Amino acid sequence: MSSYQLSEDVKALLKDPNLLIPAIAQDVQTKEVLMLAYVNQQALAHMIETATGTYWSRSRNELWVKGATSGHTQKVLSLALDCDGDALLISVEQIGAACHTGKTTCFHQPVKLG
Amino acid sequence: MSSYQLSEDVKALLKDPNLLIPAIAQDVQTKEVLMLAYVNQQALAHMIETATGTYWSRSRNELWVKGATSGHTQKVLSLALDCDGDALLISVEQIGAACHTGKTTCFHQPVKLG
Repeated sequence: MSSYQLSEDVKALLKDPNLLIPAIAQDVQTKEVLMLAYVNQQALAHMIETATGTYWSRSRNELWVKGATSGHTQKVLSLALDCDGDALLISVEQIGAACHTGKTTCFHQPVKLG
Repeated sequence: MSSYQLSEDVKALLKDPNLLIPAIAQDVQTKEVLMLAYVNQQALAHMIETATGTYWSRSRNELWVKGATSGHTQKVLSLALDCDGDALLISVEQIGAACHTGKTTCFHQPVKLG
């Protein structure tokens, strides 16, 4: 997978191509925010080429193709960088649960206002 | 604003209460992802207390009440932490544009798949 490289066009959109940046996966149909993970150049290049949800695992320090083990893959429909080029939004079709706990979304711990 | 402090209950949900964590603002009605910024304890405590979109500005190194200058404030409807306690999802009613460019969302730079 180390052969995947980011094009100069995409690099130019990034604030700093060497940064790990947060990537938000959003369900294309329900619009639910499913998870937040991180991408580096290699992960982003792999995601662009394969249209498969791909991140950089900070804990394992390796490329992480979402669902490679669990089968809970993400088909990527579209990608957008933010105005600063330091955050990514991924529109996905999620197979199975996005969260390793089995829940639809990782954001399942409510914090009370007030 | 330095008087706002996080409760022990909320601190217990965080992976590391001393980390700056990414916070995703999502429009409560359209479900559009509007922006990604960061919160520390102080910003999160201020957001919980005031139900107003509040972040920690990494560039200015100070509390940033979204819209304090532009008037483009965020009314916070609900908050949720992710399974790891190191990312936050904020459901907001956005007044005006979320992006400083005047666009609805900061994620307006498409990246082509391919």
